[in-house]
Amino acid sequence: MYNMDKLYEAVAERGHVCVGLDTAIEYVPPRERGSSDAGAVLTYNKALIEATIDVAACYKVQIACYEAMGLEGLRAYAETLRYIRRRGVLVIADIKRGDISDTARRYALAHFGGDFEADFVTLSPYMGMDSIEPWFEYAETAGKGAFVLMKTSNRGMRDFEYLELRNAPGLPAGVPSRLYDAVGNQLSALARARPGIHGYGAFGAVAGAEPKSGAEREEAAAIRSRYANLFFLIPGYGAQGGAAEDAALLLRDGNGGVVNASRSILRAWTVELKAAGRTHEGPDCEADNHFAAEAARRAAIAMRDAIQAAARDL
Amino acid sequence: MYNMDKLYEAVAERGHVCVGLDTAIEYVPPRERGSSDAGAVLTYNKALIEATIDVAACYKVQIACYEAMGLEGLRAYAETLRYIRRRGVLVIADIKRGDISDTARRYALAHFGGDFEADFVTLSPYMGMDSIEPWFEYAETAGKGAFVLMKTSNRGMRDFEYLELRNAPGLPAGVPSRLYDAVGNQLSALARARPGIHGYGAFGAVAGAEPKSGAEREEAAAIRSRYANLFFLIPGYGAQGGAAEDAALLLRDGNGGVVNASRSILRAWTVELKAAGRTHEGPDCEADNHFAAEAARRAAIAMRDAIQAAARDL
Repeated sequence: MYNMDKLYEAVAERGHVCVGLDTAIEYVPPRERGSSDAGAVLTYNKALIEATIDVAACYKVQIACYEAMGLEGLRAYAETLRYIRRRGVLVIADIKRGDISDTARRYALAHFGGDFEADFVTLSPYMGMDSIEPWFEYAETAGKGAFVLMKTSNRGMRDFEYLELRNAPGLPAGVPSRLYDAVGNQLSALARARPGIHGYGAFGAVAGAEPKSGAEREEAAAIRSRYANLFFLIPGYGAQGGAAEDAALLLRDGNGGVVNASRSILRAWTVELKAAGRTHEGPDCEADNHFAAEAARRAAIAMRDAIQAAARDL
Repeated sequence: MYNMDKLYEAVAERGHVCVGLDTAIEYVPPRERGSSDAGAVLTYNKALIEATIDVAACYKVQIACYEAMGLEGLRAYAETLRYIRRRGVLVIADIKRGDISDTARRYALAHFGGDFEADFVTLSPYMGMDSIEPWFEYAETAGKGAFVLMKTSNRGMRDFEYLELRNAPGLPAGVPSRLYDAVGNQLSALARARPGIHGYGAFGAVAGAEPKSGAEREEAAAIRSRYANLFFLIPGYGAQGGAAEDAALLLRDGNGGVVNASRSILRAWTVELKAAGRTHEGPDCEADNHFAAEAARRAAIAMRDAIQAAARDL
């Protein structure tokens, strides 16, 4: 059984929310910030995890936020992964690695075992499939999974991912073939080579839920049907502007993807305080980790329900 | 003055060799491997740096090799960067990051300052130019530089980098426009925005020196002339199969690029022992760090001279 099968079952049980622990120090309530940023982030992460564990399908930890705090930050990163895995919930290491095969092998050692062991990683495909394949061996030996960047949710997506191709091998005729299609097509073949028990391969793809108008909604629906065997990690929700309706276009039969939200969950406490006309920054802010974690829980539940309603209405 | 200007001057002074410290424990002489892999790697790195400091234009440290050893490995990574910078030589952090702008900002904090401060980083362009630009601000404030993946030296390069495009914006007419051209073109524009004092912009590109036959040699020459303002980081030499003649095609007027070699330098001691019919593995191997570092120095000098001769003969 692959981790991707377990993720499918977690979604069936608890909904589509992937809680993104992109925990910068400024997302921690002011009164909880101590002498060590990394320590304060770790403590807040634990409170967030406890408050959302029955609402989250999985967690995603953005390593950049921890690297920015140096070695102490990476210790907090390792502790966060360990804490989530001990609670029996799946965690995605958002590391977007992509390098030649020898190097990919070393990265896989780093992130599929040891101090930084995660259940899934994110990968970047630019250098080609020999930068993906060394990771793929861990699907068979340890059930590990990955989400490879396909079509992301940022503005710069149009610079390269969106470029139209000539004669790309293996692409269906008659549809505009963009770089992201060439990637999706290769990933789809890879997923066929390691089919899971719920119709999705061991490795999936990143497909973004940026706000969509008519043509873009059609495109999202086409992506979903064209890559039916790819489980999606869907970023762009909430603070990045994507709505439940946008994310739902990338789901399939009420499953098939997890939707990540980071800031809108980690900083839900500031939104609640502002709405109540109370101080949300500085030394007079009364919020503590308990309040912030409960606000995060409320935001995660609202998000879960909104996505499920949007998926039903589709 | 940008770090790229300093790198140009280092090449003029000491040649094109970039010593790649992809120091896995198996590259350290057996008798120098102690209880801590990370400690042994760091000690070997220091010996290598001392032995090659007047021969290397710069160093490149592949973070994957250190991540694979967990937190202790990353401490050795940080120490290695610090050691090189204290000696007044430039170091490239080979991290191949590429993420949305908020995240790119956090990565830049991590790798252009703090525990992991380097002079250059490597970046992956898949997600678009908004994943590159946050790094670029550090060119102005701190002289920092980057090498963005353009055309790499691995087999999988053909999967995506090499795909032909339709209507890619800003590409010259009449030449086959591949994905790597779209990247090169954007990088060239970026380099024009921050021109250095020696004809190369603050940010350069990765262009691989894999073995080349006729058409491939022409392609390399075309890449060199098309992206004249991009300083190149050239991987693929030595253990990856590229020769001095291949690397020289990507140089310009005897400068314009550094050529990376990792294994062929780090493991030169095994080659020398084998050639002499002596034991090169196991407890009976007599090589120590001093011998291995001197062998590395000889390999680096031979490589420097071969590239300079090839560049002259071009």
